[in-house]
Amino acid sequence: MPSPKVTSTEELSASDAKWITLKKINYTDQEGVQRAWECAERKTRGSSGIDAVAVLAILRSKTNAFPLSTVIIEQYRPPIDKYIIELPAGLIDGGETAEEAAIRELEEETGYVAESVTESTPVIVADPGMTNANMKLVIVNVPMKDKLETPNSKLDAGEYIVKKVVELDKLFDELKEYDKKGFVVDAKLSHFASGYAIAQKVRNREF
Amino acid sequence: MPSPKVTSTEELSASDAKWITLKKINYTDQEGVQRAWECAERKTRGSSGIDAVAVLAILRSKTNAFPLSTVIIEQYRPPIDKYIIELPAGLIDGGETAEEAAIRELEEETGYVAESVTESTPVIVADPGMTNANMKLVIVNVPMKDKLETPNSKLDAGEYIVKKVVELDKLFDELKEYDKKGFVVDAKLSHFASGYAIAQKVRNREF
Repeated sequence: MPSPKVTSTEELSASDAKWITLKKINYTDQEGVQRAWECAERKTRGSSGIDAVAVLAILRSKTNAFPLSTVIIEQYRPPIDKYIIELPAGLIDGGETAEEAAIRELEEETGYVAESVTESTPVIVADPGMTNANMKLVIVNVPMKDKLETPNSKLDAGEYIVKKVVELDKLFDELKEYDKKGFVVDAKLSHFASGYAIAQKVRNREF
Repeated sequence: MPSPKVTSTEELSASDAKWITLKKINYTDQEGVQRAWECAERKTRGSSGIDAVAVLAILRSKTNAFPLSTVIIEQYRPPIDKYIIELPAGLIDGGETAEEAAIRELEEETGYVAESVTESTPVIVADPGMTNANMKLVIVNVPMKDKLETPNSKLDAGEYIVKKVVELDKLFDELKEYDKKGFVVDAKLSHFASGYAIAQKVRNREF
């Protein structure tokens, strides 16, 4: 199977764009001065008011047959022209809650079926100096009777997503290895892993 | 001092935009099929090849006069029209390394002077389905002889940034409080705090 590859890029006028657009925001600052800011926006935000979800699936064995783990994905992303390592994620469909979208995307992209939602973050913003993109991180519980199960993903035709199960305690090091191999890690996943690794080091008085 | 506020927004053509632009990316997928993707890009990326840095400053007392802490900032962001809670961050200037930019931005936005760089992530990507924005998270060491020092920030005229020192162990809960008060938390900072909190819970067998 050939590797995907960018063949050309061209300027795109906001009027020709279907998925995203550019906006000029006029605002008054803290001194009452009128200023302008440039911003990119998705055109797809629905009634939920939230663009997207990411899913942290907690894979756990009821018999402790494997360590506490999560599932990450490898996916080619044209804006970067590389394979990106991310949490399972996706846009929220019309009429869906963030939590419903999280459970749906997890099953589509990895095959894992969440039993329950452990926690959802408030609405958070991905890159607030440049875009209005917003999202929630949804943490879900995927208990297994014993050994690690590896169900089939339910990808659409033309979707190429590879899943990888990673022990939470090894996530930070696994992401470093991905980078060495030429993958690029999503900033949100990288920050999650940094927070996890630093908490462990603080606890072990290694930090 | 009046609160900043968006007064109007308008469509912006890519040719009129100074800071960001829209691109149409033509690429071949895994089956060799020609496809298109829409993407927003900053026009400001310099010779470093990296747009931006975020800074996790580790504030520590040599006498253990205060718990291990970091510094976060409150900043109005026009794309969201709210005050956003973020790590200190900024664009990399021409000729600067990511680490130099991190130390400079930390001092400008918070007044704290980093003594050394503890660790830099590889280049990571903020929202790779929508933009090509990339960055590094730089962790820096800010040791203090004894009690917590609170130096003055070195903001430019027209920059309004409020800093807040937070214990690492309380970061997750502090971010929740900010959300309740009407602030919005940056996704990268939120993911860092989630990772930190989950590692603590795993260690305490509460997860």
